[in-house]
Amino acid sequence: MVQLRTALSIEEAIRKVMELESVCMAEQVDLIEAHSRFLAEDVIANQDVPAFNRSLYDGFAIRAEDTNGELPAIFEVIGEVGAGDVFSGKVEANQAVRIMTGAQMPDDCHAVIMLEHVEEHTENGVNYITINQKVPYGERVFFKGAELQAGSCLVEKGTAITPGIIGLLATFGYSKVMVAIRPVVGVLATGSELLDIDEPLEPGKIRNSNSYMLFSQIERAGGQAVYLGKLEDDLETCLAAILEALEKVDFLITTGGVSVGDYDYMPDIYDRLGATVLFNKIAMRPGSVTTVAKRGKQLLFGLSGNPSASFIGFELFVRPVIRKSVGSKQRHLKCITAILAEDYPAPKVFIQLIRTKIAYENTKIYVSSVGLNMSGSITSLAGADALLILQPTEESYKRGDEVPILLLSEKEWQEQACLGSECI
Amino acid sequence: MVQLRTALSIEEAIRKVMELESVCMAEQVDLIEAHSRFLAEDVIANQDVPAFNRSLYDGFAIRAEDTNGELPAIFEVIGEVGAGDVFSGKVEANQAVRIMTGAQMPDDCHAVIMLEHVEEHTENGVNYITINQKVPYGERVFFKGAELQAGSCLVEKGTAITPGIIGLLATFGYSKVMVAIRPVVGVLATGSELLDIDEPLEPGKIRNSNSYMLFSQIERAGGQAVYLGKLEDDLETCLAAILEALEKVDFLITTGGVSVGDYDYMPDIYDRLGATVLFNKIAMRPGSVTTVAKRGKQLLFGLSGNPSASFIGFELFVRPVIRKSVGSKQRHLKCITAILAEDYPAPKVFIQLIRTKIAYENTKIYVSSVGLNMSGSITSLAGADALLILQPTEESYKRGDEVPILLLSEKEWQEQACLGSECI
Repeated sequence: MVQLRTALSIEEAIRKVMELESVCMAEQVDLIEAHSRFLAEDVIANQDVPAFNRSLYDGFAIRAEDTNGELPAIFEVIGEVGAGDVFSGKVEANQAVRIMTGAQMPDDCHAVIMLEHVEEHTENGVNYITINQKVPYGERVFFKGAELQAGSCLVEKGTAITPGIIGLLATFGYSKVMVAIRPVVGVLATGSELLDIDEPLEPGKIRNSNSYMLFSQIERAGGQAVYLGKLEDDLETCLAAILEALEKVDFLITTGGVSVGDYDYMPDIYDRLGATVLFNKIAMRPGSVTTVAKRGKQLLFGLSGNPSASFIGFELFVRPVIRKSVGSKQRHLKCITAILAEDYPAPKVFIQLIRTKIAYENTKIYVSSVGLNMSGSITSLAGADALLILQPTEESYKRGDEVPILLLSEKEWQEQACLGSECI
Repeated sequence: MVQLRTALSIEEAIRKVMELESVCMAEQVDLIEAHSRFLAEDVIANQDVPAFNRSLYDGFAIRAEDTNGELPAIFEVIGEVGAGDVFSGKVEANQAVRIMTGAQMPDDCHAVIMLEHVEEHTENGVNYITINQKVPYGERVFFKGAELQAGSCLVEKGTAITPGIIGLLATFGYSKVMVAIRPVVGVLATGSELLDIDEPLEPGKIRNSNSYMLFSQIERAGGQAVYLGKLEDDLETCLAAILEALEKVDFLITTGGVSVGDYDYMPDIYDRLGATVLFNKIAMRPGSVTTVAKRGKQLLFGLSGNPSASFIGFELFVRPVIRKSVGSKQRHLKCITAILAEDYPAPKVFIQLIRTKIAYENTKIYVSSVGLNMSGSITSLAGADALLILQPTEESYKRGDEVPILLLSEKEWQEQACLGSECI
């Protein structure tokens, strides 16, 4: 009745999951819809930036060399140029052109003196300025190509699109942008104890909260979530539902049914689907029964029914697969070292992952626990910033110890999976 | 021609902006749509969690006291209970009930022994287990109310909804949730030099990239962005467009037209709108000309046309207003202290904000620059994690110095605005 299982290390389990070959498909979207999507093409500068010598301030464009002699010097103002205009005249010695921020410099001028730094006067209908200081060549001018030259790669394909990148794309006229198609990830909850979220509680039953949490985790990671409902603990019903689901999704997450209990029929289902089980036990708590099976290009993630185990199983194993599918190189939770703000007992056998909060103090990062750390606990998920990684050791962990943590932030990612020691 | 302006400190400018009274309006959305929105009501536990004594493992529910005597002890298995079921029989001394993970404990039992830790045998059609160890009271049981008691406040109104909070809401049957209505923020670009993003470049002109960047910054901050197009440098046209815009939005961002040049007519426009200018100069670079005006309950943000100044002006002044409007207490960029990874010249007069990248090493946070740091520069926006705050000082900044930085991450927020010294 009890199936024997070999526990893999977390690193080994991640490695097996990431062996999946994935082809990143692209689609075109309007720039305004591109935020949070992943670039499916390199963004190449199709022009120099700036595209012309640009004034950085309001003032007067002059020939810098005309301030090399005796000062103060008087300059004749021979015209003006606003942003978007072009001054096509010739600027001779001791002549100046009134220029606005962002305007194109007259060809002969390579310095700008600010409006506030000159004195203006008019004589016989001609405007003059008096300059009291030497103005160096290039002062307050942003030269053509100084920032970027046409042809350079600005942002690599696979990068998540932020507001800054949106600005960059707009600068180069990408009104449409090729982004990775989001993989479709289905969520199917199993367990006769589950109620729909709008049903009243009944004795022995709980609401199907994991599916909604996973739905939102999938979307946050860059996938397209499909809620496929919940199922009674019955092998044939589940098998049929999973077969149907696999027609519609790239990856399937099931919750529940993966323990070693009598009603835990997921192993039989993988068998009948012809799926290869990559692993069914991981040396970690919570989530030791996390199972992943492969069927062609599809992965089936069997997560525990416990909220924390489900949350962590997703972040460690599903999220990197979604990120790989969209071509991202930043796939894994970022692992950094932090200082323990409190004591912890050491786990006995398996690595323990504890939901924690981080705090910054004087250039250092501290970590402390949040809420109850039981795999059945849901409240602590609400406030967690990071997962603390505790290795099984003889001695307990003490306040002040340096420990590895995984950041749960939306922005912190890294290319290789790492749990504080070996990177994979 | 040159308007005299008094430069406010960044802190003072933020304080003035945040004086705006805001009424947070609420709407109901489906739970599945609630991710990233802000709670408009406290989430109250409407039941104990767990709602019943729950088994944390697959195994046998027993009376803990029956393992206090001589061991091994033999227990008769009198029934089984799956997740979602209820065992209503009486459990007597040395009796056990087969129980699944998540199932409700029989009333008489307060401990679970795992399947792997017993030996099973059958005699005359009756199942027995042999237990070799003392099992403490409460072992592997998650008691009713141990995590939470009905009536407790789980998450405060104003909190941003994360996947963990979605899970929490689902647990308590919130299939619909009250969230703050997102404030409508319009973006209107001014400047005759601006081209639409799909237009080919022309001499002296640049594409309207700020509007798209701001659009995506607004949405990321929790607002609802409306792109209102771009305008030529003409006072009457701009005034008419702004009046029309103000009919449709809660807040309006304009870019450009705020410098001291001849074409910078925004001061006149504020005047003709009857808007009160809160400030028109801030002691910071870039973005010193950032202007904010108030008209009834509406704020008009006049940001510089330079990409970096516009980006930073948004993050410092617009973002907290959006977050206040949705009832969030986490309004401001989080300020932490980091270690400089390179030397910097000190700014001369105003605080300088430099786009930087952060790196974590051995429990410490380091900061270094990314790309060109000119206010006209756009490429460096793409990779920035943080804004380095440099105060004007006599001596230059050296590698190893401890400096304040503002985190640009999506998750890091703080309640009070802070730039490393005074918190407001």
